[in-house]
Amino acid sequence: MTPSKRSDIPPFYALDVFKEALAAEAAGRDVIHMEVGEPAFGAPASARRRIAEALAGDSTLGYTSGLGLPALREAIAGLYQRRHGLVIDPGRIIVTTGSSAGFQLAFLSLFDAGQRVAIADPSYPAYRNILSVLGLRLVRIEAELESRYQPTPALLAEAGPLEGLLIASPANPAGTVLDRAALGALVEHCAGAGVTIIADEIYHGLTYGPAAPSVLEFTDEAVVINSFSKYFTMTGWRIGWMVVPERMVRPMERLAQNLYISANHASQIGGIGALEPEGEAEAASHMQEYATNRQALMAALPALGFSDIAPCDGGFYVYAGLGGLSADSRVFCAGLLRHEGVATTPGLDFDPVRGTGTLRLSFAQSPERIAEGIRRIRAYVEAGCPV
Amino acid sequence: MTPSKRSDIPPFYALDVFKEALAAEAAGRDVIHMEVGEPAFGAPASARRRIAEALAGDSTLGYTSGLGLPALREAIAGLYQRRHGLVIDPGRIIVTTGSSAGFQLAFLSLFDAGQRVAIADPSYPAYRNILSVLGLRLVRIEAELESRYQPTPALLAEAGPLEGLLIASPANPAGTVLDRAALGALVEHCAGAGVTIIADEIYHGLTYGPAAPSVLEFTDEAVVINSFSKYFTMTGWRIGWMVVPERMVRPMERLAQNLYISANHASQIGGIGALEPEGEAEAASHMQEYATNRQALMAALPALGFSDIAPCDGGFYVYAGLGGLSADSRVFCAGLLRHEGVATTPGLDFDPVRGTGTLRLSFAQSPERIAEGIRRIRAYVEAGCPV
Repeated sequence: MTPSKRSDIPPFYALDVFKEALAAEAAGRDVIHMEVGEPAFGAPASARRRIAEALAGDSTLGYTSGLGLPALREAIAGLYQRRHGLVIDPGRIIVTTGSSAGFQLAFLSLFDAGQRVAIADPSYPAYRNILSVLGLRLVRIEAELESRYQPTPALLAEAGPLEGLLIASPANPAGTVLDRAALGALVEHCAGAGVTIIADEIYHGLTYGPAAPSVLEFTDEAVVINSFSKYFTMTGWRIGWMVVPERMVRPMERLAQNLYISANHASQIGGIGALEPEGEAEAASHMQEYATNRQALMAALPALGFSDIAPCDGGFYVYAGLGGLSADSRVFCAGLLRHEGVATTPGLDFDPVRGTGTLRLSFAQSPERIAEGIRRIRAYVEAGCPV
Repeated sequence: MTPSKRSDIPPFYALDVFKEALAAEAAGRDVIHMEVGEPAFGAPASARRRIAEALAGDSTLGYTSGLGLPALREAIAGLYQRRHGLVIDPGRIIVTTGSSAGFQLAFLSLFDAGQRVAIADPSYPAYRNILSVLGLRLVRIEAELESRYQPTPALLAEAGPLEGLLIASPANPAGTVLDRAALGALVEHCAGAGVTIIADEIYHGLTYGPAAPSVLEFTDEAVVINSFSKYFTMTGWRIGWMVVPERMVRPMERLAQNLYISANHASQIGGIGALEPEGEAEAASHMQEYATNRQALMAALPALGFSDIAPCDGGFYVYAGLGGLSADSRVFCAGLLRHEGVATTPGLDFDPVRGTGTLRLSFAQSPERIAEGIRRIRAYVEAGCPV
């Protein structure tokens, strides 16, 4: 028995750092977690209450239908009404096991092996790793800080023939938002070129300036992927959703039945709770802390020698160049964790070409912990970034 | 946007029937659920208690490491000690989002596109649908009732060159167990022929005669897939595990990180609770009801005109031929649901060639409900099986 060729993908460095950080904690160290994209808050109280009631009730919490609980699909449709003024048929909403399952369903149902999907780097590493495992051809677009690390019609035109384009707004790791003009231009270009858009909108709601428009405000001919993990702080519940054109529902349902049977029942009930007014208010209440953290990091990092810091219009990451601090982000991250107990993610996760010189810092936790993280990063830099 | 060719797989008929049955129930009908492979009992009380405590506690229940909570992996190792007298290194155990994720991880990490994997029909439909979606070539072995609907070295020798073999014991839908001699012969044949065995052991614990041996009693060179869904009655919690050779752990971990991030945290805590003595006792307590149901069905069906009934050594299904009752199992199942409110699964799910003439009846619920199901099936047959 030997591993297949297609399983030879890079690790998800953030999760490797996370594992090391958990081991350090188990050994008694205090670690500041700025590596994983995970809020330090649990699910909203209304979600936890709903789940606790279900646990105590009569339901066996067995399989649901492959598309998800009707009540959850309706509640998600309500979110589009409130956030974007859009009326979305709940029949077009597919509940998934986190956005992870959404990406698999999208790639498998839309593209056959060998087809070409473009992604602008820096980007979430699972995109390109799932693409590659599923036999698709990644067309890497090297986005520049000047274009806000986002794809543009001009960059797409240079990329050659494409079947698909994956966009993310707010983006991970760069935090940049595609505004109405930029998103509209991409939609128009792709419609003309016959390119299917998959839009990762998982950081919607998490913006520090204008709200991020949904691709659904421009077209129904796109596949939207979202999740309760980030805005609703429910990472470990593995619950997300897709919005797809009506004719894609049945092919995706067949795939979902076979690949997953159904999403977690209790998590679906939790999702219903998260979308109650109380849950939405709790999710919104974290924004002030995130804004404080964002400001603290954006102010502190340049003075410490970090360079080329992405704008961070949304999400909860700062993506920064290492300037002259280190030639290898893996070495920098390992040293910072070892000497100061601050876990961060090397840029190689997000950009296999330029990521040796960059770092992602996640700030979805209390301002006290982030302030302590900044103090420790300063101490590490002042000590000369020992390995 | 059009669906990909590879997404053109058959639906999972059991789940389509399930959806129709749920809709009938929502409209006020009483439906006997003999379609889905799902116990009518919720998670063990010890599992639910653990989850409820976690919900009320300080943990955010965020992502876990990609391989799963160490405490759960250790608890699963303990199960192999108790059930099979085997000492399994917890480092070889990978926690998965149900057995569904286990099959994806196994197929992707072991085989490249175009490689050949054999499955004996009748079999669980997701096997061949996942195989096909992931670009593998299914080598269908037509197993006979005389060989207990299981593959044999002779059938494998006829099948031509293979890279993999998927075995299931107790099997779904046939319920047949590979005893020590039969399993040992398959392991020996595959070792000699360079064929990797993937063993679906999800119905372990559910046997009405001798316990099913694990392939791990014969070799470490196999990939074992199991789950809390069936024996521990936790279907909707989507939590399972794999046991793999040590050198396969890291390739599978990389895939799991990218494809899933991690399994559901609360479900992992529930799994720990299920493996406490109280949880195992509760799981075991259902066996008497299953045995009563099995006996009632095996006694009633032949008299109603069903034929070629598989032995049902284990699991909680009866797989039966329709004899002269109907020429098309889909028509029979639809009529039985419409006229009598009994949901069953057409054999086409399990055998695309011979399944027009067979039916699977799931009996993982109270004897009262199964007795009522039998009464209704009798009424349907006596009415001449109206469409």
